[in-house]
Parts: sequence; C-alpha cells; structure tokens
Amino acid sequence: MTQSIYQSPPVGQEISCVMQGLDSSFLSKSFTLNKIVKTFLDEHKFTVLNVVSHDFSPQGFTLIFLLSESHLAVHTYPEYNSLYFSFYSCRGENDVTPLFDKLINRLKPKEFLYNKDDKVPVQKKLNHLL
Amino acid sequence: MTQSIYQSPPVGQEISCVMQGLDSSFLSKSFTLNKIVKTFLDEHKFTVLNVVSHDFSPQGFTLIFLLSESHLAVHTYPEYNSLYFSFYSCRGENDVTPLFDKLINRLKPKEFLYNKDDKVPVQKKLNHLL
Repeated sequence: MTQSIYQSPPVGQEISCVMQGLDSSFLSKSFTLNKIVKTFLDEHKFTVLNVVSHDFSPQGFTLIFLLSESHLAVHTYPEYNSLYFSFYSCRGENDVTPLFDKLINRLKPKEFLYNKDDKVPVQKKLNHLL
Repeated sequence: MTQSIYQSPPVGQEISCVMQGLDSSFLSKSFTLNKIVKTFLDEHKFTVLNVVSHDFSPQGFTLIFLLSESHLAVHTYPEYNSLYFSFYSCRGENDVTPLFDKLINRLKPKEFLYNKDDKVPVQKKLNHLL
C-alpha cells in the first residue's frame, strides 16, 4: 500500500473555503443560503438530485446538495460569524471555480481562506491520475 | 476583502482522499459502504442526522452522511476503480483521523492520496482562526 500526500481527485475539482465576517442573515437559518446556492447551481447547469439541511439549536445549519456532478456542502458557525464551504465536482477541471467566485461576490465575506486549483499546484496533477 | 491560500477551517478537521485499486464490491452500489461507514461513525460517537445516497447508471454512487459534527461524503468511480472520500468534523482537532485510518484498513486500497493534518502543516493553524 502506497501513501502519498494529497493530490487532486481522479476527476474534477474541489474547493474548500472558510468565509469569515459575513452578514448574519446568511448564517442562522438555511433558507436564504439554500435559495442563493440553488440559483447558482442552476445557472451553472449542475443537476441537483437531493438537498438535505439541518438547522441546529440555538443557531447554525448544515446544507448539503447531492449533485449528478458530486456535492456541495455548507456548515455555518454564527458564533464565529463564519461558514465552511466545500464543493466537489467530477465534471471537469475548473468546474467549480465560476460558482465559487459568484458566491464570494454575493456573500461578500470580510475574509475567506480557500484552496483553489489556480493557487494550489497539486490540483494541476488531475490528468496524471486518469 | 482579503484573499489567502487555504488554511484550516475555523474549527475542526477535514480530510479529503482519493482511494484507488479497490475491491469492486465497494464501488458499484452504496449498500455495502453505507453499512461500513455507518458502523464506524457509531463507534466514534458521531451522530448521523441524515443519510442521502444516489446510485448512478450504469454504475457508481454518491453517499453523504449529514452529521451533528458536520458531514462525510463518498463518490465512487468504478470506471477508475477508485473513490473520493471527504470527511469534515467541527468537533475538534484530529477528530476525523481515527475513522479515516479505520476505513483505509477496512477497504485496503492499493493506493490512496490524501490531505491529513499530520501531513499538511496548515492544518495546525486551527487555533489561529478562533
């Protein structure tokens, strides 16, 4: 068995992101963000097969879209004024970047920390695994 | 707005992994892997709030556990004899490692590529974000 430092998935692209300094209206209940993300998924021709969400007590939620092209997950932490966003698509290289950029522009976090293929060279190794 | 290279989520730990060279019994339909992962989640005291899966035609599936502690997602690619595994927990540092190790031992992939906090120094920056 060979162990290696993490590289790209065999197909597709993933982005993980922590956004901080968000408007609290996005963080407490899932309805608003659900609507925004669903609209963006539709615009970028992703096929939503299922949506599951859970509103935690006293605050915060998890929202997960199961897609034909893989999945998108959001976990919010109103206590830190932040959310975690993870989006993986097996449809092709750079497939998640446009929606991610659009979401950043819509939510306008004061700060966001992310991995993204044009910043993380290992993501370029995609074709080596095919 | 500040952009930074991806660092750890504000709380918790994440692992993304591609496993290759797997027994085909794990990759085609979700039932077997669903049972294995659910058992491991129970053993490690994760609380499953919802499970969604989708079997694709002609093969492969997506399996997602929505947890009190965040989420675990699997996408299989029988055509590449591989799967993508993503597990994020906001319960604490190194929270996902024991289950990940157990899953590797159970599935015995010929090769696996992953990010893991003891291999990726940025994961150590957890407390800087709190």
